[in-house]
Amino acid sequence: MNIQGIPGGVCAAKGFKAGGIHSGIKPGSEKPDLAMILCETQCSTAAVYTQNKVKGAPILLTQQNIQNGYARGILVNSGNANTCNPDGMEIAQKCCNLAAQATGLDAADFIIASTGVIGQALPLEPFERGIPQLTSQLSAEGSGAAARAIMTTDTVPKEFAVEFTLSGKACRLGGIGKGSGMINPNMATMLVFVTTDAAIEPALLQQALSEVTAVTFNQICIDGDTSTNDTLAVLASGLAGNPVITERNEDYTMFCAALRDVCTKISRALAADGEGATKLLECVVSNARTEETALAIAKTVIASDLFKAAMFGADANWGRVLCAIGYTPGDFSADHVSLSLKSKAGEVLVCKESAYHPYSEEDASRVLAEKEIQVLIDMHDGSKSGTAWGCDLTYDYVKINGDYRS
Amino acid sequence: MNIQGIPGGVCAAKGFKAGGIHSGIKPGSEKPDLAMILCETQCSTAAVYTQNKVKGAPILLTQQNIQNGYARGILVNSGNANTCNPDGMEIAQKCCNLAAQATGLDAADFIIASTGVIGQALPLEPFERGIPQLTSQLSAEGSGAAARAIMTTDTVPKEFAVEFTLSGKACRLGGIGKGSGMINPNMATMLVFVTTDAAIEPALLQQALSEVTAVTFNQICIDGDTSTNDTLAVLASGLAGNPVITERNEDYTMFCAALRDVCTKISRALAADGEGATKLLECVVSNARTEETALAIAKTVIASDLFKAAMFGADANWGRVLCAIGYTPGDFSADHVSLSLKSKAGEVLVCKESAYHPYSEEDASRVLAEKEIQVLIDMHDGSKSGTAWGCDLTYDYVKINGDYRS
Repeated sequence: MNIQGIPGGVCAAKGFKAGGIHSGIKPGSEKPDLAMILCETQCSTAAVYTQNKVKGAPILLTQQNIQNGYARGILVNSGNANTCNPDGMEIAQKCCNLAAQATGLDAADFIIASTGVIGQALPLEPFERGIPQLTSQLSAEGSGAAARAIMTTDTVPKEFAVEFTLSGKACRLGGIGKGSGMINPNMATMLVFVTTDAAIEPALLQQALSEVTAVTFNQICIDGDTSTNDTLAVLASGLAGNPVITERNEDYTMFCAALRDVCTKISRALAADGEGATKLLECVVSNARTEETALAIAKTVIASDLFKAAMFGADANWGRVLCAIGYTPGDFSADHVSLSLKSKAGEVLVCKESAYHPYSEEDASRVLAEKEIQVLIDMHDGSKSGTAWGCDLTYDYVKINGDYRS
Repeated sequence: MNIQGIPGGVCAAKGFKAGGIHSGIKPGSEKPDLAMILCETQCSTAAVYTQNKVKGAPILLTQQNIQNGYARGILVNSGNANTCNPDGMEIAQKCCNLAAQATGLDAADFIIASTGVIGQALPLEPFERGIPQLTSQLSAEGSGAAARAIMTTDTVPKEFAVEFTLSGKACRLGGIGKGSGMINPNMATMLVFVTTDAAIEPALLQQALSEVTAVTFNQICIDGDTSTNDTLAVLASGLAGNPVITERNEDYTMFCAALRDVCTKISRALAADGEGATKLLECVVSNARTEETALAIAKTVIASDLFKAAMFGADANWGRVLCAIGYTPGDFSADHVSLSLKSKAGEVLVCKESAYHPYSEEDASRVLAEKEIQVLIDMHDGSKSGTAWGCDLTYDYVKINGDYRS
């Protein structure tokens, strides 16, 4: 399957404009905090949200707005999560009304998302001032500005796009995302927005999104805390002119591959930019009994604080990986595990048949000194694979989240 | 129910001697590393172990040895976990043989446990030299020495004992425990050993132990990593002369209360001495739908890295607590939560009806500056309660677990 990386982020696909500005949502901050993505036509829409029982008001409103499977715009603010606010729904609705007024669309055409501190009142004024200005600045070059405006303590904006072919028609799909981090500490929130010009029915788009989420975003872990505001939404304009995908055919498979490609890239970028992170960790589990088991083991290893701290110290402490494999729920054998540590500096086999395998600590330290580390686990227990991504546990994580709010 | 704290640890109950020495298990270390607890008579015995699929050899051998419900001695070493060693079972059996030889008992009379680095060969020589010496030094004053010999990077030994009455007979029950920490970093292991002179059948002892474990040791969390070697064992000598407990009668209830008292004290001590900890955190959930839900919510809050880091920074970041409540699995409502932070410096209500409740940040900082913090969560969703214990996430946790092994 030919999937080609291209620039343009959420504006790569036909029909989409985007932008981001500073509106002053967070007192005393000068950073951009308000983003919009807008399509010239109605889009098939799908979304997945946090499974946290405490959900931000924007999620509840978005669920209502896209119940019919369609949307045209996305309005996002950083600096305030609009969660645990008694008037949260009212404020979210007013923001959508303002976006509708400025664009000439319906309020229910909008997906809305917020990230930042929770339990603090969200004032409407910045939206009243900002939304008309933002709307007038939307452009096909605005993906980067939107990616920056949704950041909290992310250190770099994240945007990716690809080109692929469905039934002979060139299609594009791109996304922006923000991960974990906050200047005024509060829970991190993952927000990801994807646009495509492929034509696909809402029901199939939701299937594709759910399938891809299971092996991408659900397989990253920064600190094990599931936010109240996580949102991943996809808008499909259909402007590429491919035959509308209405069943799980070859085009559906190709579309899923393109969506997975972009979602994997954003997932890796989010993990690499986790709070305080100095290293991207990728755990690849092979030859497991089921795919579910492979994914669960990879996620459990990547979530282990002890393992994460060892990676920060470039310590080939493989016993911690065996330990994490062992406490992964599920029915499998951990008796014949092989374990390698790999980076661009080389690969070191440290464990075979679930026991110590002689290796050079110097080689291991050299491998672990790199910025991207792979932990390769062969379960010798089946034929299924799974991958997860995370980052190391560092002094800066404690600092970012332990310092007094000020 | 009258349960009185007394000194003596595992030697408080009639019939028990203990001791601890340095035998040289860990090269270059001078610390005590070998402990024994011995009873003058056969004991009803019960134990619970780690649920990790990767289990240390000592656990597998102990399971065999106490299958009949009886034991007389406990042999424990620190410095090496004897886990992921191809010859682990053989070494563990030889250690039991040496203990049998030195005491004139059967090898199968012994519970054996190990804690320390995993995946490194455990030499037999220190046991050959040490066990005869250790056996000759056992005494009714030896609980403290045993408690010290099982420590890894624990900073203080943990021992507790109580006196109570069963059918008019004075009974005693005491325990020692070690928690998480290692000088040569590797996974932490919890080991706890309890002795009592109460007379109770093995099957009832196992029931009592499982019930109490669910609300004590299973409710502590240092870093979410379940060790390969966790072991909790109870020996009941019956020398107090009470009528043997053979059913769930009044004496059984009293015995459980005494066992729970000691296990709660050890649990709190383990949490307070977690790796790098500066604070003991206690989360009390009340008015939950079920006890299971109350316990799960308390444990989830206490395990949240974000919450733990906030407590290190004395930051009343209550949104993180709401977030952790929200991602606790189970069927319950998180819509009417009240939340208070409490210590000996006072109590501050920070959240009501799952939304911000006005409070003074200064008051909150003063409360959170203390060494013991209570997080009081009222779910307003039922009538059941549950408690969990943990510690803050600190720079030292990262340092202890992230530094190069040397």
